[in-house]
Amino acid sequence: MAAEVIIALDAMGGDHAPAMVIRGAHIALKRYPQARFMLFGDESKIRPLMARYRKLTERSTIQHTDEAISGEAKPSVALRSGRRSSMRLAIDAVADGRAHCVVSAGNTGALMAMSKFVLKTVPGIDRPAMASYFPTRRGESVMLDLGANVECDADNLVQFAVMGDVFARTVLGLVQPVVGLLNVGSEDMKGNDAVREAAQRLRSAFSPISYHGFVEGNDIADGTVDVVVTDGFTGNIALKTAEGTAKLILEFFRSAFRHSILGRIGYLFARGALLKLRGRLDPRRYNGAMFLGLQGIAVKSHGSADALSFANAIAVAIDMRKNGFLEKIRDELERLQAHAAPIAKPQSATV
Amino acid sequence: MAAEVIIALDAMGGDHAPAMVIRGAHIALKRYPQARFMLFGDESKIRPLMARYRKLTERSTIQHTDEAISGEAKPSVALRSGRRSSMRLAIDAVADGRAHCVVSAGNTGALMAMSKFVLKTVPGIDRPAMASYFPTRRGESVMLDLGANVECDADNLVQFAVMGDVFARTVLGLVQPVVGLLNVGSEDMKGNDAVREAAQRLRSAFSPISYHGFVEGNDIADGTVDVVVTDGFTGNIALKTAEGTAKLILEFFRSAFRHSILGRIGYLFARGALLKLRGRLDPRRYNGAMFLGLQGIAVKSHGSADALSFANAIAVAIDMRKNGFLEKIRDELERLQAHAAPIAKPQSATV
Repeated sequence: MAAEVIIALDAMGGDHAPAMVIRGAHIALKRYPQARFMLFGDESKIRPLMARYRKLTERSTIQHTDEAISGEAKPSVALRSGRRSSMRLAIDAVADGRAHCVVSAGNTGALMAMSKFVLKTVPGIDRPAMASYFPTRRGESVMLDLGANVECDADNLVQFAVMGDVFARTVLGLVQPVVGLLNVGSEDMKGNDAVREAAQRLRSAFSPISYHGFVEGNDIADGTVDVVVTDGFTGNIALKTAEGTAKLILEFFRSAFRHSILGRIGYLFARGALLKLRGRLDPRRYNGAMFLGLQGIAVKSHGSADALSFANAIAVAIDMRKNGFLEKIRDELERLQAHAAPIAKPQSATV
Repeated sequence: MAAEVIIALDAMGGDHAPAMVIRGAHIALKRYPQARFMLFGDESKIRPLMARYRKLTERSTIQHTDEAISGEAKPSVALRSGRRSSMRLAIDAVADGRAHCVVSAGNTGALMAMSKFVLKTVPGIDRPAMASYFPTRRGESVMLDLGANVECDADNLVQFAVMGDVFARTVLGLVQPVVGLLNVGSEDMKGNDAVREAAQRLRSAFSPISYHGFVEGNDIADGTVDVVVTDGFTGNIALKTAEGTAKLILEFFRSAFRHSILGRIGYLFARGALLKLRGRLDPRRYNGAMFLGLQGIAVKSHGSADALSFANAIAVAIDMRKNGFLEKIRDELERLQAHAAPIAKPQSATV
């Protein structure tokens, strides 16, 4: 039998919380009967919503708190005055060992600040990064950072490359993932100082990472590399631009089918294939950004997530736990750093 | 009868030059019989390619030069040692008043550096920006900068907002275009110093620009604003990410139709509607990035452009000339600066 996984849920985070958190946990439990949940939030709201889910009620505990972090709260304020918030208590449960992972659809900045403060970063990592995977022409790739670090220097980018490499090995199961740095062109001289310096270090003979070079925006969908490394500002905008574009084109297709009789007939025939495609492109399938570089598993769901999306974010957390991600990332980082200490700092003039 | 427009073409710029430049000019001439061309480049290569286009030969002159700027050349090197290059001579023709506009599919950085040096910027603009329009849910929007300025401060972003506003008024014909700043969230505290300071100035009561606020990546395709303002690093990556995503999804659809018999039958019925949609989304339709802020019309085509794409870039240049873009942008900038001098520099604490 599969081992039990205990998930701490911030029941009050997200636009549709707590209802979608509870329904999301219900959906996740059907997929992973070995899951247990700790729901943090307003018991008077959570309890009635649980009533219809007998199985979920059996496998959950409710930890009451009146406080919740608002979507507008500054991370520093949330950190200082949110010690009794549903988000913070859920993170504390992971730090104390009462839960294996935490999932929240709440304020991203607050979740990152609190997770970093409470769970601490893995030795060798200055700042954690948000990562997610997405569909490409060749399968799936992972991109980081997606918004945790708005300004990044070369050190951060090199560390993101290391974390992305380990993530692709352990969770995506790739033997030798290929890593690229997102830039405005492929030539060496392109980009800002941070990407140019990071590229120089990743290209160094001491780097155990299979470094492809610079990649451009169109390489994301092409799947040119397995791991796309970028700063949080660019990564966040690239991810949301891709999501927005995909949504728009699906709408264009829908209206093309709808606005002519032949289009409607064509749709009826092709419906099966199109629904399958729609499933494959459903952004809800890719919900759940992982916080990499922490000594604990924390997953951020989209704030606007519905129950199905939230269930996918829970699934991401369960997968990380089941794959022993934390142990592997710690081991791999140690191994990488032993072999690759020089990539952690600028090289001498010969490089 | 429409007035004659003389277009200087860098015949040697682009992956498929000079053949696609000549065929592109031929296509453009069929659409705009009032066009004349000055082709700059290797006459021994250009002349034989022209032979089959009688009309184009009649309306073109060839200005021979052996030199061309390579795709890898650093802008500073191109500027210093490329004085006899096809690109430079084409720009010179605009500066001298022999041509009305220049179009090149060559090295972007070199084209920007040379255009800025030769044509000069409009008073009040420190750095020109690259702009392009693209399809959205609500029609078309314009985005800038797309890669001319990898690092931008708040001054640059405010100037881009002014140029984008004028462009949307004069070329897109909008009465009161709405301008947004691309960021990782809509809240005031989000983003880096440059976007936060630019936002504060655009929000000021002195600003005549209809400023929407921060927009996110998904707002680009949504058409939330008419003008999306961002730095050249982010803008370049967002544009290419959108292009790559669109291309991938069209391929997914193609294979969905192909991989089942019902899909194939459905495609036969819906073919007309789908081909129309494909035409609407064809990236070649949106080829041609305008350099805004220069005292001359310069348009950059994609380096990988084919003849049809290149013809569209020529059309963009002709449109700018026919709409009197240069005169209007000069007038509008003067008017805006008279009313809005304060937005050009940081406000006092009350703003």
